[in-house]
Amino acid sequence: MKLSLTIDQVASLTEAVSVEGEAEARSRVLMGIAALADASAEDLSFLANPRYVEELASSRAGAVLVATDHPGKPLAGQVYIRVTKPSYALALVCAAIEARLWPRPAAGIHPTASIDPKARVDATASIGPGCTIMADATIGAHAVLEAQCHIGIGARIGSESWLKPRATVSDYCIVGSRCRLQSGVVIGSDGFGYEPVGERIERIPQIGNVELEDDVEVGANTTLDRARFSRTVIGRGTKIDNLVQIAHNVRIGRQCLIAAQVGVAGSTVMGDGCVLGGQAGVSGHLQLGDRVKLGAQAGLFEDVPADGFMNGTPAMPFGLERRVAVLARRLPDLFKKVDSLAAALDSVRKSAP
Amino acid sequence: MKLSLTIDQVASLTEAVSVEGEAEARSRVLMGIAALADASAEDLSFLANPRYVEELASSRAGAVLVATDHPGKPLAGQVYIRVTKPSYALALVCAAIEARLWPRPAAGIHPTASIDPKARVDATASIGPGCTIMADATIGAHAVLEAQCHIGIGARIGSESWLKPRATVSDYCIVGSRCRLQSGVVIGSDGFGYEPVGERIERIPQIGNVELEDDVEVGANTTLDRARFSRTVIGRGTKIDNLVQIAHNVRIGRQCLIAAQVGVAGSTVMGDGCVLGGQAGVSGHLQLGDRVKLGAQAGLFEDVPADGFMNGTPAMPFGLERRVAVLARRLPDLFKKVDSLAAALDSVRKSAP
Amino acid sequence: MKLSLTIDQVASLTEAVSVEGEAEARSRVLMGIAALADASAEDLSFLANPRYVEELASSRAGAVLVATDHPGKPLAGQVYIRVTKPSYALALVCAAIEARLWPRPAAGIHPTASIDPKARVDATASIGPGCTIMADATIGAHAVLEAQCHIGIGARIGSESWLKPRATVSDYCIVGSRCRLQSGVVIGSDGFGYEPVGERIERIPQIGNVELEDDVEVGANTTLDRARFSRTVIGRGTKIDNLVQIAHNVRIGRQCLIAAQVGVAGSTVMGDGCVLGGQAGVSGHLQLGDRVKLGAQAGLFEDVPADGFMNGTPAMPFGLERRVAVLARRLPDLFKKVDSLAAALDSVRKSAP
Repeated sequence: MKLSLTIDQVASLTEAVSVEGEAEARSRVLMGIAALADASAEDLSFLANPRYVEELASSRAGAVLVATDHPGKPLAGQVYIRVTKPSYALALVCAAIEARLWPRPAAGIHPTASIDPKARVDATASIGPGCTIMADATIGAHAVLEAQCHIGIGARIGSESWLKPRATVSDYCIVGSRCRLQSGVVIGSDGFGYEPVGERIERIPQIGNVELEDDVEVGANTTLDRARFSRTVIGRGTKIDNLVQIAHNVRIGRQCLIAAQVGVAGSTVMGDGCVLGGQAGVSGHLQLGDRVKLGAQAGLFEDVPADGFMNGTPAMPFGLERRVAVLARRLPDLFKKVDSLAAALDSVRKSAP
Repeated sequence: MKLSLTIDQVASLTEAVSVEGEAEARSRVLMGIAALADASAEDLSFLANPRYVEELASSRAGAVLVATDHPGKPLAGQVYIRVTKPSYALALVCAAIEARLWPRPAAGIHPTASIDPKARVDATASIGPGCTIMADATIGAHAVLEAQCHIGIGARIGSESWLKPRATVSDYCIVGSRCRLQSGVVIGSDGFGYEPVGERIERIPQIGNVELEDDVEVGANTTLDRARFSRTVIGRGTKIDNLVQIAHNVRIGRQCLIAAQVGVAGSTVMGDGCVLGGQAGVSGHLQLGDRVKLGAQAGLFEDVPADGFMNGTPAMPFGLERRVAVLARRLPDLFKKVDSLAAALDSVRKSAP
Repeated sequence: MKLSLTIDQVASLTEAVSVEGEAEARSRVLMGIAALADASAEDLSFLANPRYVEELASSRAGAVLVATDHPGKPLAGQVYIRVTKPSYALALVCAAIEARLWPRPAAGIHPTASIDPKARVDATASIGPGCTIMADATIGAHAVLEAQCHIGIGARIGSESWLKPRATVSDYCIVGSRCRLQSGVVIGSDGFGYEPVGERIERIPQIGNVELEDDVEVGANTTLDRARFSRTVIGRGTKIDNLVQIAHNVRIGRQCLIAAQVGVAGSTVMGDGCVLGGQAGVSGHLQLGDRVKLGAQAGLFEDVPADGFMNGTPAMPFGLERRVAVLARRLPDLFKKVDSLAAALDSVRKSAP
């Protein structure tokens, strides 16, 4: 996909303060976005982090978004587009491209979609090919369901939510407004609840649902289990990455960030603004306060008060874990040192009168 | 979803021994199920664990399932429904609700399903919208395939098995009777088998299948690889949670419980009644006896005899791992102590004659 | 599925040097392939690893692929098929079976597939039931899309690539030639990019794509995120197992092997021939040289030069990690030893004059 934006168009999109460079360079059409080290004369690049100043000095980028107070000057044939905040300016360019790459599909229902007569689909919603929408489901205004999405019995999709191909919202689950579900998401699988009954393992019925509040985003092939009863809840504005597992009756607060392959076991309750690193695991029935952080691959088995930062398996406070990790690498030395101490002490005792 | 059950109906469902409370309270219609701390006057709650006796004292639940020998009395406006085992009574109520929420779909094939003429679908089976069933596949009596399931060439689905939307059973795989597959399950993906041939990595053909014995349940987006040759086997009654990976030629025994995000590498053989904690990993070509337990996030690299309980990475016996984990947190102290011992010894030696 | 191959047919397929055994045994039809210990008189088995010589002595296999220089003789009623390399000979038999189990589907588009009029599908490609192919997508010569695959806007599938049921290649992504995608794969989900803006977390548009070079294979339910801008790249010949997460802007070299449930965070760059063990995690913005190895469940947080082998969390060089792991199990002894040293030193000091 090509940018095909003139430098003037980029300057306008980014509300640039000024544009510097030779006239010929300024007439260039930019075809792509690239990091400073990778960019060619047809690319737009950016200096958002002072760490990359040296890469700027040798970058072949045709145009660079730089801060208004950046002291340098463009190289020959290069253009500087000066903006108040380069990272935000870049996001504005990307958003413009995104709108071009993914225009909102036209309202209406694709002829290959299968809609139960008792489902209610808003006339402004867009339902893609191969979608299946079951009885009593509700699809809100301006919602987009791309190809092969499945919406179960009595499930509700809020207004302006966007479901990528093959997202599944199972029976009776609720998705708020402006949510975004990636491909392969499963919302409302059964909770994993079993009880030994004699020689058999009996399934405990899982009759609750999952509720996503507004502005929640869920990554590809992530699974959110329905509650045993009542609700599994993902709070407003929380973002969940790919291949994450959220078990039954978990309640996640607002504005949390949950990285890929995290697992949260049943009935754990998490506050607002928590951040879980990739592949971390949280045990069941725990209480996490607001703004708790958990490092990548950590395994948490205890409650954490607000603002706690835990790491390692089993997780301990971050500072302690860092010290333990450093000392663990020195265990071979420690064992040797203790052996030589023992030998030295032995010789002291032998030489004693 | 609403309970809409009178207290008499709940008492009848749960085979209650007695009901206590004022007449007005007893005429109430219950609308939901909730934990003691969360329940309102319209909710049914329960005391299954003595740990929650204090919550019962202040619970606003309209009705509570309590054991026959529970010494307390209902609060004003509250009802006690006395039963022999409250957790089992609750499960009976939930099962009644479940049957109402998920009535067995009518037998027959949805017009949007695509069934190969050479497939055999039992007349009592229910095939949902968008399903694809390939040549020589067999769907047993009273089986339910919800929307968008895929059944490959020559695959077999046993009687009364229930596949949630978008479950995939690939070519030649076998699913027993009364199995339950959650959305996004993939049964029969290729095993990960490659061999370096000069500069290239060549695929080793994977011509075996996967066989699920009766009463197996598999969680959302879990993947079970087909065998290189012969079979990957999941034993009768075993339950597997979401996002689990079972590699080619693995054999899992009966009545095992495998929590979310576990991975089991190729050709490992596991006995009956094993329990694997969330995110645990089991290396390939291992032998695990009956009733082996593995802690959450553990990484197992060795055989384990029957009744072994392993934890940590690399996994060691649970008791040892617990001691090591506690001592690891004390490493900063140990290093300091050894340093001061060395200094003290040094001073003893210097002061020696 | 049955082999149904005579011993002569197997000998011919494997370019056997000689066949040994009684005439009656040699007229047998082989029905399956099994390991030496499991094989019956109707099975073909093999001795590829000298470790299993003892199992050969008591194997009931009807025929065994053995090396030309294997010193033994077949048991009564058994046949030896002597070949130069038994493991390769077995792969030849398996490949013949595979071709029979999975004949290339006929070219053409299934009537239930939904193809946008602006998509270009090569006349030799095979498009299965329920597939959805969006505008401007391109499907190359002899490509196979099994049931329910989804190909997004402007996406490209190279010639002879084979997509198993329910593979998803999202908008603008590129799949090379001879690639193989297992069921549930999601190629081109949004990268996980967010920025706090006041109280809210704002999504950073993800406008890049994913590019799979030729001969790449991707396992079931694996997710590959599209780049923030530019490309996420999987190099030629690389094989990725099930449930793996590759984040935005990652670049993986050629001929790498990535085992199940691995996660690689954003912008990490990996050389050729790397091997990542199951459930390993690689942090973001790292540089890994060629042929780097990472152990199962390891967590890597630093750059690794070519040929490095890292293990543990946080990952350290393999040899060091092995020593640390052994010593960690001896921590209980070490703590005791240090305590008794302290006591002994104390008594020395007290007894000093």
